[in-house]
Amino acid sequence: MSDGKDSLDLSGIGAAIPNSAELSAEDKANLVASIKNTLEGLASRHMDVLESLEPKVRKRVEKLREIQGQHDELEAKFFEERAALEAKYQKLYEPLYSKRYEVVNGIIEVEGVTESADETPAEQKSGDETAAEKKEEKGVPAFWLNAMKNHEILAEEIQERDEEALKYLKDIKWYRISEPKGFKLEFHFDTNPFFKNSVLTKTYHMIDEDEPILEKAIGTEIEWYPGKCLTQKVLKKKPRKGSKNTKPITKTEDCESFFNFFSPPQVPDDDEEIDEDTAEQLQNQMEQDYDVGSTIRDKIIPHAVSWFTGEAAQDEDFEGIIDGDEDDDDEDDDEDEEDVESDDDYDTKKTKGAAGGEGQQGERPAECKQQ
Amino acid sequence: MSDGKDSLDLSGIGAAIPNSAELSAEDKANLVASIKNTLEGLASRHMDVLESLEPKVRKRVEKLREIQGQHDELEAKFFEERAALEAKYQKLYEPLYSKRYEVVNGIIEVEGVTESADETPAEQKSGDETAAEKKEEKGVPAFWLNAMKNHEILAEEIQERDEEALKYLKDIKWYRISEPKGFKLEFHFDTNPFFKNSVLTKTYHMIDEDEPILEKAIGTEIEWYPGKCLTQKVLKKKPRKGSKNTKPITKTEDCESFFNFFSPPQVPDDDEEIDEDTAEQLQNQMEQDYDVGSTIRDKIIPHAVSWFTGEAAQDEDFEGIIDGDEDDDDEDDDEDEEDVESDDDYDTKKTKGAAGGEGQQGERPAECKQQ
Repeated sequence: MSDGKDSLDLSGIGAAIPNSAELSAEDKANLVASIKNTLEGLASRHMDVLESLEPKVRKRVEKLREIQGQHDELEAKFFEERAALEAKYQKLYEPLYSKRYEVVNGIIEVEGVTESADETPAEQKSGDETAAEKKEEKGVPAFWLNAMKNHEILAEEIQERDEEALKYLKDIKWYRISEPKGFKLEFHFDTNPFFKNSVLTKTYHMIDEDEPILEKAIGTEIEWYPGKCLTQKVLKKKPRKGSKNTKPITKTEDCESFFNFFSPPQVPDDDEEIDEDTAEQLQNQMEQDYDVGSTIRDKIIPHAVSWFTGEAAQDEDFEGIIDGDEDDDDEDDDEDEEDVESDDDYDTKKTKGAAGGEGQQGERPAECKQQ
Repeated sequence: MSDGKDSLDLSGIGAAIPNSAELSAEDKANLVASIKNTLEGLASRHMDVLESLEPKVRKRVEKLREIQGQHDELEAKFFEERAALEAKYQKLYEPLYSKRYEVVNGIIEVEGVTESADETPAEQKSGDETAAEKKEEKGVPAFWLNAMKNHEILAEEIQERDEEALKYLKDIKWYRISEPKGFKLEFHFDTNPFFKNSVLTKTYHMIDEDEPILEKAIGTEIEWYPGKCLTQKVLKKKPRKGSKNTKPITKTEDCESFFNFFSPPQVPDDDEEIDEDTAEQLQNQMEQDYDVGSTIRDKIIPHAVSWFTGEAAQDEDFEGIIDGDEDDDDEDDDEDEEDVESDDDYDTKKTKGAAGGEGQQGERPAECKQQ
């Protein structure tokens, strides 16, 4: 129906990219030859549209293109000003985030707490208990874990075995990156028994500045301590009957974990053919991965306290109900803490996942190779 | 896992609503009692979180809430400034849109065309032909139809039988509305043989200012001329054998049409129970409806010329390919103009459709009742 471009299946992708969307030189360079051919085909189709017009109409369209050009120049300025406005406010938020960090981690004490230091001094208690309790007394324990667990999208990602490690989260930050465009999340961890890294990062490279068209996502390789890897489970198998080897065979198996967030889905090489089902599955995985990342950036980081107290979740539940999405009225039958493992029917909307996704190559081998 | 709120199924809804999201008084008033109960349950859960904390930690969290409050005040200012920035640019675009309107509709002639008025004067031609040719000569014929047809989401909506009517489109405009929040699309039509209305509108009421959480959509009731309704087909049935009535029975049936856009999906009354499948189907319909509306607002209106020439589609195809979404390389086998009628597997992402959707009640009966 639309000038012969029906043969390209673009199923909804790019549904809201402004025309001014520009690709960086690097993005362009990465494109393979087959795509180039396709583009040349498309370019010639465009010329066809103009050529098919009678001369008078064509002249008018040329004038219209001039007007469009003026619009697009203005629009580029709009994007610039909007980015500057965002940056200005990010700077204004900064001292508030710092203060939050200090209170959460007990670096500063709030008024009224220091004065009533009426407990038994920690020194009088013995052994392990002391250390544990001292930790509990500092700042707001498990602040980030609980903030994240109160968001339903993140709650689905956090497994029970992850929780102990996530209690060591001291801060989550984000900032924009520019070449390539995108943003980076930083997860700052206290010294912990699970992994060596003090900061885990996740970087999203976006195709488009304005709309969340993901190009690829990159995560820090986690340096797990021996036996502490949370993204793999060790299975023990009995050797086959009659086998010479009588020792049990141990086998590691990937498992669900929040920490898989740092080894995002990867796309195959350009020249590797993938079938439609695989492509769709990958698309869904990338969308889900992006959903998690953008939730942390847009919801958790700016409103962590409201998530911790549950106020933010309440607001969203409220809207969820208006959206006609509440299937279940009986709030009494709170189900117990069963792990939510149904990642498959995960409902991702809004974001568009896309091609790309490379695990960053760390320099030293980690205890636990990510998938 | 998250404080007993697992029993509410919010499946991905509200995935990017900032905490500052506020509901208008009107929205709140419309809520039914059952929702109120649910909210009270949620509110008490929130209090539980604070109460469960030991006194020292609770004091720290109170301090954190104060900091969060300061953040949210700043954020509200940010939203305000951003809205003002957008409004400023919308005003700057206005004269360019007006000029586009004048060129498209032949209200002004562009330089170089008036001078070479070298054709046979229209008066010397005869009858129907003259009128038709004259029409072709003015401005840029079928400008909006072709601009829309070059966007894949809209191309799926536009049926072949719609095209003749859509050629009468003179302009498409949009503006924000504030009480309730949302936006309105206006489709300005030339006098045409299909319907009486000169302007068809579609209004989206949004729950949230910042994110596309749709509350309901309202469309103009179209006053079709007799026999001209494009959203219904007349079927003739032979009467049953042996029936006394020997005249063929005519039956009208809803059919696919772009003009269904003006009678958006409606949600049942508050007290009417709907099952999960129905709710999901409705959700999908509303998402699709919102996708069409936001595509027209965000893509077609600001870049209509680039869509008309195909340049914009080319840019999006380009991105679509990078997104790994190109399953099909052979651009030669352009399929012919078969209507795309597979609305069911329509791929809507990004937007969140939601509850509500009422057909506006016109004052006089229209020839063709919308669904």
